[in-house]
Amino acid sequence: MAVRVGVLGATGAVGQRLIELLDPHPDFEIAALTASEDSAGEPYRTAAKWRLNTPIPDDVATMTVGATEPGSIPDDVDLLFSSLPSSVGARVEPDFCEAGYVVSSNSSNARMAADVPLVIPEVNADHLDLLEVQRDERGWDGALVKNPNCSTITFVPTLAALAEAGYRLERVHVATLQAVSGAGYDGVSSMEIIDNAIPHIGSEEEKLETESRRLLGEFDGAEIRENEVEVAASCNRIPTIDGHLENVWVEAADDLSPEDAAAAMREYPSLDLRSSPDPLIRVFDDPDRPQPRLDRTLGDGMAISAGGLRESTFGLQYNCLAHNTVRGAAGASVLNGELLLENGYL
Amino acid sequence: MAVRVGVLGATGAVGQRLIELLDPHPDFEIAALTASEDSAGEPYRTAAKWRLNTPIPDDVATMTVGATEPGSIPDDVDLLFSSLPSSVGARVEPDFCEAGYVVSSNSSNARMAADVPLVIPEVNADHLDLLEVQRDERGWDGALVKNPNCSTITFVPTLAALAEAGYRLERVHVATLQAVSGAGYDGVSSMEIIDNAIPHIGSEEEKLETESRRLLGEFDGAEIRENEVEVAASCNRIPTIDGHLENVWVEAADDLSPEDAAAAMREYPSLDLRSSPDPLIRVFDDPDRPQPRLDRTLGDGMAISAGGLRESTFGLQYNCLAHNTVRGAAGASVLNGELLLENGYL
Amino acid sequence: MAVRVGVLGATGAVGQRLIELLDPHPDFEIAALTASEDSAGEPYRTAAKWRLNTPIPDDVATMTVGATEPGSIPDDVDLLFSSLPSSVGARVEPDFCEAGYVVSSNSSNARMAADVPLVIPEVNADHLDLLEVQRDERGWDGALVKNPNCSTITFVPTLAALAEAGYRLERVHVATLQAVSGAGYDGVSSMEIIDNAIPHIGSEEEKLETESRRLLGEFDGAEIRENEVEVAASCNRIPTIDGHLENVWVEAADDLSPEDAAAAMREYPSLDLRSSPDPLIRVFDDPDRPQPRLDRTLGDGMAISAGGLRESTFGLQYNCLAHNTVRGAAGASVLNGELLLENGYL
Amino acid sequence: MAVRVGVLGATGAVGQRLIELLDPHPDFEIAALTASEDSAGEPYRTAAKWRLNTPIPDDVATMTVGATEPGSIPDDVDLLFSSLPSSVGARVEPDFCEAGYVVSSNSSNARMAADVPLVIPEVNADHLDLLEVQRDERGWDGALVKNPNCSTITFVPTLAALAEAGYRLERVHVATLQAVSGAGYDGVSSMEIIDNAIPHIGSEEEKLETESRRLLGEFDGAEIRENEVEVAASCNRIPTIDGHLENVWVEAADDLSPEDAAAAMREYPSLDLRSSPDPLIRVFDDPDRPQPRLDRTLGDGMAISAGGLRESTFGLQYNCLAHNTVRGAAGASVLNGELLLENGYL
Repeated sequence: MAVRVGVLGATGAVGQRLIELLDPHPDFEIAALTASEDSAGEPYRTAAKWRLNTPIPDDVATMTVGATEPGSIPDDVDLLFSSLPSSVGARVEPDFCEAGYVVSSNSSNARMAADVPLVIPEVNADHLDLLEVQRDERGWDGALVKNPNCSTITFVPTLAALAEAGYRLERVHVATLQAVSGAGYDGVSSMEIIDNAIPHIGSEEEKLETESRRLLGEFDGAEIRENEVEVAASCNRIPTIDGHLENVWVEAADDLSPEDAAAAMREYPSLDLRSSPDPLIRVFDDPDRPQPRLDRTLGDGMAISAGGLRESTFGLQYNCLAHNTVRGAAGASVLNGELLLENGYL
Repeated sequence: MAVRVGVLGATGAVGQRLIELLDPHPDFEIAALTASEDSAGEPYRTAAKWRLNTPIPDDVATMTVGATEPGSIPDDVDLLFSSLPSSVGARVEPDFCEAGYVVSSNSSNARMAADVPLVIPEVNADHLDLLEVQRDERGWDGALVKNPNCSTITFVPTLAALAEAGYRLERVHVATLQAVSGAGYDGVSSMEIIDNAIPHIGSEEEKLETESRRLLGEFDGAEIRENEVEVAASCNRIPTIDGHLENVWVEAADDLSPEDAAAAMREYPSLDLRSSPDPLIRVFDDPDRPQPRLDRTLGDGMAISAGGLRESTFGLQYNCLAHNTVRGAAGASVLNGELLLENGYL
Repeated sequence: MAVRVGVLGATGAVGQRLIELLDPHPDFEIAALTASEDSAGEPYRTAAKWRLNTPIPDDVATMTVGATEPGSIPDDVDLLFSSLPSSVGARVEPDFCEAGYVVSSNSSNARMAADVPLVIPEVNADHLDLLEVQRDERGWDGALVKNPNCSTITFVPTLAALAEAGYRLERVHVATLQAVSGAGYDGVSSMEIIDNAIPHIGSEEEKLETESRRLLGEFDGAEIRENEVEVAASCNRIPTIDGHLENVWVEAADDLSPEDAAAAMREYPSLDLRSSPDPLIRVFDDPDRPQPRLDRTLGDGMAISAGGLRESTFGLQYNCLAHNTVRGAAGASVLNGELLLENGYL
Repeated sequence: MAVRVGVLGATGAVGQRLIELLDPHPDFEIAALTASEDSAGEPYRTAAKWRLNTPIPDDVATMTVGATEPGSIPDDVDLLFSSLPSSVGARVEPDFCEAGYVVSSNSSNARMAADVPLVIPEVNADHLDLLEVQRDERGWDGALVKNPNCSTITFVPTLAALAEAGYRLERVHVATLQAVSGAGYDGVSSMEIIDNAIPHIGSEEEKLETESRRLLGEFDGAEIRENEVEVAASCNRIPTIDGHLENVWVEAADDLSPEDAAAAMREYPSLDLRSSPDPLIRVFDDPDRPQPRLDRTLGDGMAISAGGLRESTFGLQYNCLAHNTVRGAAGASVLNGELLLENGYL
């Protein structure tokens, strides 16, 4: 039987992707939608300005949107997917956990909190056990799990593959070319970005630099010990709709050839979860791939793609890409939901 | 009296910019235009598909385009600006020099040749003296001077400013977001680049890595001794018309704060040449500048702009930008022409 | 058993779409690929620069591309899909028909020839009977069937729906906003179209004006009698990848309200062919739909969408849209192939 | 001596263009800036997020922005340029006129009011005399003059040229391809328009249809008698930054050849006002011009360009273009200011 789920912040860009992914999902059944006060009480069809190129699911379209508070959620709902603005998430997510709901959240609040698992299932599924610590400390019946920022999710699996293959990573430089959908429907005005690029996304660089160390870290039963790799990020917004492309330089303690790196990425295991693609990382031989428009939908938008592996002046150099609102946001939360289900938290 | 000049490869994207810059130039007078065989004999108006948003100059429009060979150039022409495809440049530029013409070339051939000055006047004007070596070795009456690649020109002045302020540069990472005009009018098809980015530009990374060391090097009277800074580049094409944006990380032997770096860039001197802007480098305080569409025309397209100076995990981090077909190509060649004139080579 | 088919001009933008559509098609099996001399003898993977966001089918990738001449086609192939440049099509298509092949062609040559059926199956399937006249006159064992131009296909079904509902159409104005893919992979350079629009596409307006009258005409057993509607077209290229959007004004002899027009379009029947979507025409109530990026993939790219039906100063006004390389080209040819199969021509 | 002027709504897209045009203007001196409550009291540099590619003028940057009410305007200011949202304009513009200010307004409110001159100086300067009626009726010391909507301004001069040459215009169809800047800085989100087009702009079509008849009408000393031409418009937003392109079909009572139409446009007189370009209409012979990116800056953004004049199925057909935030908005208001000055209203 499908787990009944709710979507917090269901009308935004990531909320719409969540609905697109959850509606046909065999393990989950959409039973509640929330949005801001303004939209509460409206049918989803009018509350959301649906802008995906798949049709709005009929059954969801007629659901009434509730306010974003525990009282709006039916009791038989077990799992909530959250794509709230971080300031709202910081305020209300603990209320839902307190009220007994398991929350798989894409919001950036609390991602680095000591007792909140920040998880990419294929990379650090074992961090989920931190929930025991969380429940001990907070006394929640529910639970709060986070997925990382979209730009973090894009490059961390490639680093994880190298680490898994035994390379000790020391220094990473990453420059991002990020799509406009990462900022939400009204995040980037057309006058700002057509025939242009913006070399700044607020707080984004810090997210790549800190979340990556946590994701690659180890859970020792009590806390996450961060990986010691040092990361420097530079973030840019460019005129693409979907798909974050990243240039990565890696310096390892050991000799790391492009061929060995490609092999490590190709062999990096996927998981036996419904939304996890196999292989997880598609490695291109062509030096000009991956490209956002051509490769963002690989693995139904859940694959990481990599290419252009070459020797750099300082070590290894390559490019990687992921669909920022699927693998990098809505799909990441859904995948964490699948992991929670698999691990008996629902 | 104005020096009579010719333009080799006058119909392409850079050729058109050359004509736009040279036509009103008080020191130069356009007296000859060449193009490929196909166009030779045609009036410029029909030979060139003019695509700038300034009108084609009337007097140039009616000039007849000649073949790209010394015999097409009137004897009273002294200086040739070359924006030929590099394979053509490699073949014919020596012929023009042999025939006595001074050639200021934007073509990529021979840029790293030991006896060819590769010059950004504000950065290494003294490298021009290498022409004495060139004439000795080649026996030319003419001379060959090169400007660097557009993506090299964008970041080297910022490094030169740091070096000039006394910082010893050790390691530089640079990621480029390059405009489509850098590939010429037909270089990038719209289907390749709309809603997309391409993380590969053939040979471009090597140009940034090698040309930068030469430009920052020293001429010891006999040869150029390259600077010891190590550079790693990653190049991307994005959907902008003009203006290359670059993310730069710099590690210096000495402590280098963002404030000191900004001061060094602001104080870096310009030259008293007509096309050299003052200041050479415009430093923005806003973290989201420079941006291609907003800042590429600063200083009539000849300024370098920089911004987002901040402490990086590994040293200093910032962004810089230049207009790739003006400062990065046609304007660079014209500026070298002005330097040649100032130094008595014409 | 699947009909064995070949693709003439298999490496171009429409050729790639043909392969994407034909590879999984249960009625057809790709057995031959041709391209220009340059590519003949190469495996398809290297001959075609594959640029779709679906992967190149493995079995097709390893096929050897042949020259575009009857001798390259195995004897057991019955049906050829042609997306040749029109000058090539004009030269070689008759040879293939002479040699006994049935050709479903997207090329613009011979579309208005008196004995060549120009067919959109849902609109004028009965025109296929013109093949009897064709065979009589030309003595071919094979046959030549054409689909119309992409911009014609976009608006004609909406007119057909109005005509089918009994309205006598008198005057039509249509302005098109056409995607770059309509010109092929290298048809529109990025420098021409980013931040721009081009109000001219060679010969395109004439195609809309003449093909529409033929498609809406009647086959009297001997020839096609053109519909008497007068059409004036104005064609523009805009910076979209796929999807032609058209603004249409219709003046009918009879009173034609937006509501009645919407009903006529909604009720216009589809066909029981595999690639024909049901409904054929999706009518939006929102005034700002259809939009290329949101609606071009409706019905797997084979639906026509319409919206913004409103009273005009002069009659009826609305907008319509179709995916230009699917419904407007490759899918149109495949659909004609299905019609040929259904009607016993294979 | 320069007239002291104020800008109402100085921080928006049109407000910024007004400042760019007024700052160097010899007849006007910027003496007051207003914006919404939120910005009142701030220096202009922080109140406006300046996004033009010309630098913000230093003297304007340090001016303090006032609230949009008569009390914020110094007494020695005579002329106000208004680019307020229409709902705000409707509320406050009469207050300023009542208080004695002459207002040259780009806001859409009151454009069709019987006693408000709607003026394009080169087309209907004599409509300015309607101000006598306005003052009689309203008892204002000040005055209110409007310029039309940007999309109206683009095509009306071409119609006026035909009318001036003696052609009686009967029916006009116009389809617009409008730039995003027409909706203001935050009017069109990037997710709405990249790789897309939107066939709907609220109320825009009605503006073209009604304003054009008024502009081409005659002032009989008491009221404007509208021209009898019937106009049908279809409006689209496309991914261009600046420049509205329009496809026009004209049916006249008389025979109207493309050649005669071109001659009429070329000969249509400009005015001896500082911002009026000469010629007013640039007519291209190339069928693929005008194009937004190439031609919007002709005549410093104040020229109308036309091209593609050809025989249509129903009469004459052509394309025209104007810079929507210069000729179509800020420049239009400035030009009306110049006309007011010339006519002794200041």
